[in-house]
Amino acid sequence: MNIPETKNPRIVVIGGGFGGISFLNQLRSIEAQIVLFDRHNYHTFQPLLYQVSTAGLEPDSIAYPLRKVFRKNRDFHFRMAEVNNIDTASKTIETSIGNLSFDYLVIATGTRTNFFGNKNIEANSMPMKTVPQALDIRSLILQNIEKADRITSEAERRRLLNFVIAGAGPTGVELAGALAEFRKGILKNDYPELDENEMQVHLIEGSDRVLAPMSPQASKKSLQFLLNLGVKVHLNTLVKDYDGTTVITESENFDTATFIWAAGVTGAPVSGLDGDALLPRANRYKVNEFNEIEGFKGYYALGDIALMETKDYPKGHPQVAQPAIQQGRRLGKNMKRLLAGKSMEPFSYFDKGTMATIGRNKAVCDVKKMHFAGAFAWFLWMFVHLWFLVGFRNRVVTFFNWTYNYINYDRAARLIIRPFKGK
Amino acid sequence: MNIPETKNPRIVVIGGGFGGISFLNQLRSIEAQIVLFDRHNYHTFQPLLYQVSTAGLEPDSIAYPLRKVFRKNRDFHFRMAEVNNIDTASKTIETSIGNLSFDYLVIATGTRTNFFGNKNIEANSMPMKTVPQALDIRSLILQNIEKADRITSEAERRRLLNFVIAGAGPTGVELAGALAEFRKGILKNDYPELDENEMQVHLIEGSDRVLAPMSPQASKKSLQFLLNLGVKVHLNTLVKDYDGTTVITESENFDTATFIWAAGVTGAPVSGLDGDALLPRANRYKVNEFNEIEGFKGYYALGDIALMETKDYPKGHPQVAQPAIQQGRRLGKNMKRLLAGKSMEPFSYFDKGTMATIGRNKAVCDVKKMHFAGAFAWFLWMFVHLWFLVGFRNRVVTFFNWTYNYINYDRAARLIIRPFKGK
Repeated sequence: MNIPETKNPRIVVIGGGFGGISFLNQLRSIEAQIVLFDRHNYHTFQPLLYQVSTAGLEPDSIAYPLRKVFRKNRDFHFRMAEVNNIDTASKTIETSIGNLSFDYLVIATGTRTNFFGNKNIEANSMPMKTVPQALDIRSLILQNIEKADRITSEAERRRLLNFVIAGAGPTGVELAGALAEFRKGILKNDYPELDENEMQVHLIEGSDRVLAPMSPQASKKSLQFLLNLGVKVHLNTLVKDYDGTTVITESENFDTATFIWAAGVTGAPVSGLDGDALLPRANRYKVNEFNEIEGFKGYYALGDIALMETKDYPKGHPQVAQPAIQQGRRLGKNMKRLLAGKSMEPFSYFDKGTMATIGRNKAVCDVKKMHFAGAFAWFLWMFVHLWFLVGFRNRVVTFFNWTYNYINYDRAARLIIRPFKGK
Repeated sequence: MNIPETKNPRIVVIGGGFGGISFLNQLRSIEAQIVLFDRHNYHTFQPLLYQVSTAGLEPDSIAYPLRKVFRKNRDFHFRMAEVNNIDTASKTIETSIGNLSFDYLVIATGTRTNFFGNKNIEANSMPMKTVPQALDIRSLILQNIEKADRITSEAERRRLLNFVIAGAGPTGVELAGALAEFRKGILKNDYPELDENEMQVHLIEGSDRVLAPMSPQASKKSLQFLLNLGVKVHLNTLVKDYDGTTVITESENFDTATFIWAAGVTGAPVSGLDGDALLPRANRYKVNEFNEIEGFKGYYALGDIALMETKDYPKGHPQVAQPAIQQGRRLGKNMKRLLAGKSMEPFSYFDKGTMATIGRNKAVCDVKKMHFAGAFAWFLWMFVHLWFLVGFRNRVVTFFNWTYNYINYDRAARLIIRPFKGK
């Protein structure tokens, strides 16, 4: 793979998500060679993927070329490839473009969609973890509305206009809210022959509240927001199957041509670290307070794929952006200390709070013991997301698109560029 | 296809390009039912497609939802479908979603890529007439540079970094210039291990000058601009074949993994109008001064697909945006006159001039007898293209991206979202 030989230690990083890039950001002037692997040539700002799915933002606004992030790092190399295996005996990774030895390995591969073993759901539902998947959802939504507009069968039209989302975590809630706003803003104006009431958004959740990781106050408020937007919320309901036509739950069935699966994720580890490194249930690497994988010296895991048991978080930190960013930063600093012969400092998580947006002027925030909701929370949500978005250009374009969509009740990116033809 | 019955005349329009939308823009308050067919749900601003191919603009900036353009038209219907045939006996079109009768038919289907019957070139080269094709080119260029960075074989690396474009019309020239700027701005910064000089851009042209439809002054100046940017221009050179590895011409061969075919277009007519309607060589419908297809009353053709023989343009108008826009406007006004029982007015073309951009501060303009080139022409080019771009949002985003790219010597949209895996 044409990585130059070096006398310095070689640090290999797998994954250019929040953990990977915040780690690398610390290493601008380190005496080490850094090689980053990712299957995409861009960083994805995952918290805004749902806006791509619902035609609010262009994909290019929430993606950022990985090579550019590290343009100024010395002896930095990016390779777009799939990492298939880690050979601990020779300290080598095996990738789709060849093998590479390393001195330190940082695994920041995040999570993938969890279908809990249901092959039907895996085959027929739409997951949303990557930009191409989000674009597929965008195409499918628009295609189904186009189809609904041209057919005369009422039953089929209702099926095409029925949108069902499994999982009321942040992704599911934000998607449901955005789809409800799509109905209000777009369906009415662009599809005058379609009856607004025939389009339905169903949100199905197994537990007894939406946004379960947030405070009860936030759950209550966001449920209210969803209901106000006309989303049908089904709590305490487990999805059992989906054959491409009907979503089957214990209590009710839903005919739909668009079933979005946001009901769970599981770790996306790389094979090769045997023993107790990987916790079977969570599929996450068990790490110590320095993010070092237990039993593997010089092997680190960051963010969603890492599980660090602490007093405050006995089951590990939440699988969201902040722990990944903070762990990456800590490990970056520690790596510099390590190479300078100093001892590492343990990670401690600073909880900045949690937020989710449901729609126009409708968001919920938990910050420490404070809970607030509504327009102010919504502005705060926008500000925070713009702040963390990588790249000045992306921030400006996103800010402009939001302002434009807000003023015009529009979602401007509703283009079927690559029709979705099934998986 | 669920189009409501109407007592008013039904006008069917095939194609939402420049001709189609400028025609429809005239008919906001007409006593007629309008049905627009397009295979995409968006209008494509074709003059800027090359900027999508070369990562300068997001696809969403140069595409605009067709339904939105005509939101305010009364009794307007859009259908995303392929029109397969016209049955003149029953005045019906046959489409991928069913048949529809019409009173008036407007064909504005434009052109498609002309491979002049060469199956190898058709199978292995990259055409650039649609947004998905432009995105495929963007992916392929970036994939080949990524590959070049990771291999050790010098011959293979040179082949991957050799970019060959056939046809030095506006598309070919603008693409070649943008690729040369890509080398200067991106290759140097993001791929420090690649030697800038190993990346080559070849522009192959059969005639004896670039931009042949423009003035000799513009041709001379743009050739100079191209050479200054380091583009290798091969005039009087006909491409004979491309097997996916080597472009074969009469004089020289070029090993390349990226061969972009911009060497010709031909009309994209709809089958069904027999007789002398279609001129075999150009594949364009012969129309009278009212854009009515000769021998077919109530059938009109607009823009690239229409060939109107006039004193000033005995071989028809140039196949660019302006004649399509102006013909569409004229026909729209005439349609209103027709329905009001008035006589139609003949089309007359107002030549606003021609322009092409080669790169940063480098453009050429012909306006009447005036010819100018350089930074002023470049600013004018930008202004005109922003002016004609559909939609306020697209204009602002494009303007911002251009400003950003200009200041930063960057092309921000260099993302491999859908890897190109071959046709």
